[in-house]
Amino acid sequence: MSIQSFHPPVRTLLGPGPAEVHPRVLAAMSKPTIGHLDPAFVQMMDELKSLLQYALMTKNNMTMAVSAPGSAGMEACFTNLIEPGTKVIICENGVFAGRMRENVERVGGVAILIKDEWGKPIDPNKLKDALKVHPDTQVVAFVHAETSTGALSDAKTLVEIAHEFGALTIVDAVTSAGGCELRVDEWNIDAIYSGSQKCLSSAAGLSPLSMNPAAIERISNRKHKVPSWFLDVGLVTAYWHGGKRRSYHHTAPINNLYGLHEALVMLHQEGLENSWDRHRYHHLALRAGLEAMGLKFLVKEPYRLPQLNAVLVPEQVDEAIVRQRLLNEYNIEIGAGLGDLSGKIWRIGLMGYSSNEKNVLFFLTALDEILASMKAPIFKGMAVDAAARAYA
Amino acid sequence: MSIQSFHPPVRTLLGPGPAEVHPRVLAAMSKPTIGHLDPAFVQMMDELKSLLQYALMTKNNMTMAVSAPGSAGMEACFTNLIEPGTKVIICENGVFAGRMRENVERVGGVAILIKDEWGKPIDPNKLKDALKVHPDTQVVAFVHAETSTGALSDAKTLVEIAHEFGALTIVDAVTSAGGCELRVDEWNIDAIYSGSQKCLSSAAGLSPLSMNPAAIERISNRKHKVPSWFLDVGLVTAYWHGGKRRSYHHTAPINNLYGLHEALVMLHQEGLENSWDRHRYHHLALRAGLEAMGLKFLVKEPYRLPQLNAVLVPEQVDEAIVRQRLLNEYNIEIGAGLGDLSGKIWRIGLMGYSSNEKNVLFFLTALDEILASMKAPIFKGMAVDAAARAYA
Repeated sequence: MSIQSFHPPVRTLLGPGPAEVHPRVLAAMSKPTIGHLDPAFVQMMDELKSLLQYALMTKNNMTMAVSAPGSAGMEACFTNLIEPGTKVIICENGVFAGRMRENVERVGGVAILIKDEWGKPIDPNKLKDALKVHPDTQVVAFVHAETSTGALSDAKTLVEIAHEFGALTIVDAVTSAGGCELRVDEWNIDAIYSGSQKCLSSAAGLSPLSMNPAAIERISNRKHKVPSWFLDVGLVTAYWHGGKRRSYHHTAPINNLYGLHEALVMLHQEGLENSWDRHRYHHLALRAGLEAMGLKFLVKEPYRLPQLNAVLVPEQVDEAIVRQRLLNEYNIEIGAGLGDLSGKIWRIGLMGYSSNEKNVLFFLTALDEILASMKAPIFKGMAVDAAARAYA
Repeated sequence: MSIQSFHPPVRTLLGPGPAEVHPRVLAAMSKPTIGHLDPAFVQMMDELKSLLQYALMTKNNMTMAVSAPGSAGMEACFTNLIEPGTKVIICENGVFAGRMRENVERVGGVAILIKDEWGKPIDPNKLKDALKVHPDTQVVAFVHAETSTGALSDAKTLVEIAHEFGALTIVDAVTSAGGCELRVDEWNIDAIYSGSQKCLSSAAGLSPLSMNPAAIERISNRKHKVPSWFLDVGLVTAYWHGGKRRSYHHTAPINNLYGLHEALVMLHQEGLENSWDRHRYHHLALRAGLEAMGLKFLVKEPYRLPQLNAVLVPEQVDEAIVRQRLLNEYNIEIGAGLGDLSGKIWRIGLMGYSSNEKNVLFFLTALDEILASMKAPIFKGMAVDAAARAYA
């Protein structure tokens, strides 16, 4: 076996995540490991909790980072809040609702899916109608910003409707947190999870999680133990929020948490609303460039995510070859479509540290040149100019 | 809120884990993030699989790193191999058997605990007797190297006995992998998990996992879906081992995996058996020093783990004050006792990169000085000399 040290290529990350990680965050991750019960580490975790509360606009005491990726944050919400027989309405407008359904059904819950077309936001009226038909629904779950389609749903209204019918809400904010407006307390979201590697721009592997007192009460009234020991919020809380009596639950991913701490310090220094604005600013320049090339968005203007741009692949263009050439010739990563959208869209992420002018101009130049070389009929050669004008 | 960048103190890590992380591994973790589906990353994962096979001495195709700490690796084994009604014998000789029991019962399995005194190895005869009483046992689970007591059990014999009775085995190798003899294929272990942050000396947050064809067959014959979507081995395998059709499951902890890759490259360069020998070599020097001070081990000589030294706290000494002074005056972390051993033992880890002469001599000097200043009756002042002679 002759395996050498790994030296990753330097990529421009414009896919659906991970986003690029700022050198300050990378440097933080390479600081010396200390123990997960070290007083200095415990203080860092307390700070991290405050920083996460800031990023999610919440005062929830139960705010922390799950020691695993966003999928585990999702599972932490469902496995704690759902018991056998719990009826859950899941609003589906992209790929992640299917995963939510798996989460519900695997722990014995009853999932009811209400469907909207992929690429459209969730229709609040359909949720209302479904809740009228199923008044015994205990939980409503939906994705705030659909990473698979680039569509933003109106989380505030959806939560209001769920609450009118007495249901709690689980909100997937994997792609929204840090990238667009998200107000956990003001919108009365009960349980929310995100991912470290998208608009929060830290390394992959952690999942911010927050639950309000109503969610915690539901968990404390469970009849059965949570099926997962690792994700049992009651146990994890004793480690994260135990104060001086903090008890050992599992070994936290120490260096990864250093990174998230630094990423959130940077978010706080920039200002959360400034970060939302920055994502929108670079999205508008990207849009100008893409439209100058004749490319069209999957999602209608009012519901477009600035951080995840789903663009229709022009006819006669093999989308996979374009992605491959972007990667091989320019070291640029963009994403493919998932599910029914496979082959039909590109997903261009401008998330976190990746959302900057240099990336937008470089990407437009590269895409322009590749499409031109393929003699794609939509090519107009005005992309970078248009973006530059948008910036000017 | 005035939270600044976090600068961890530089500690000498001699607790039950995390171990110190080599600068090469820390540097690997700070390399630029690339996508989890990037061809370069996929190649790195293939290498990582080979390196993990080397570290665990197995050819199991299903060898990977769970994207979460060792507790999740444990849960991956149980949640995949146990179904409602599955009878599991758990050999208990320390704290982690209790966690195994939680893992079994939370997914509907039936756990039978057979108990040995904490600090002693598991008695194979008790396992045999229990299997005679419960011939319908489908799984036997035990901890190879008990982190809570420092006792090593005879995994090879325990697995043989389980197999005689037709039961599969789940082995906790969190503290053993890399630190002492462990031969997964030769010993016919069916399912095994470890942790990245102990004798493999990478950052915390990953759990090496390996399953043989018998375990995989059991999983593929399940009647119910695995309760955890995130830890479903069938799904994770499609990502880790899908070859060119590798499918997205979750976003891997990319930078953490860089670190584990580098740590395992270093293990391979040192040689696995050399690593076992190194752990034993520094343990013997530590032992010489501790014994010169009149300190005694909890565990009898033949069952002592070189990487986790459980030392009885001398009478009239407040163990917590000693640990606090080691941390505050010397930046040395050692571990406290857990459960019934709380207040009675110190746990001195010499794991991975932490297992070196500099650490042994520094720790003995520090402990010697602290105990002398407390006028503890056992103080003899010969510790470092004794260790130095052991090294000479």
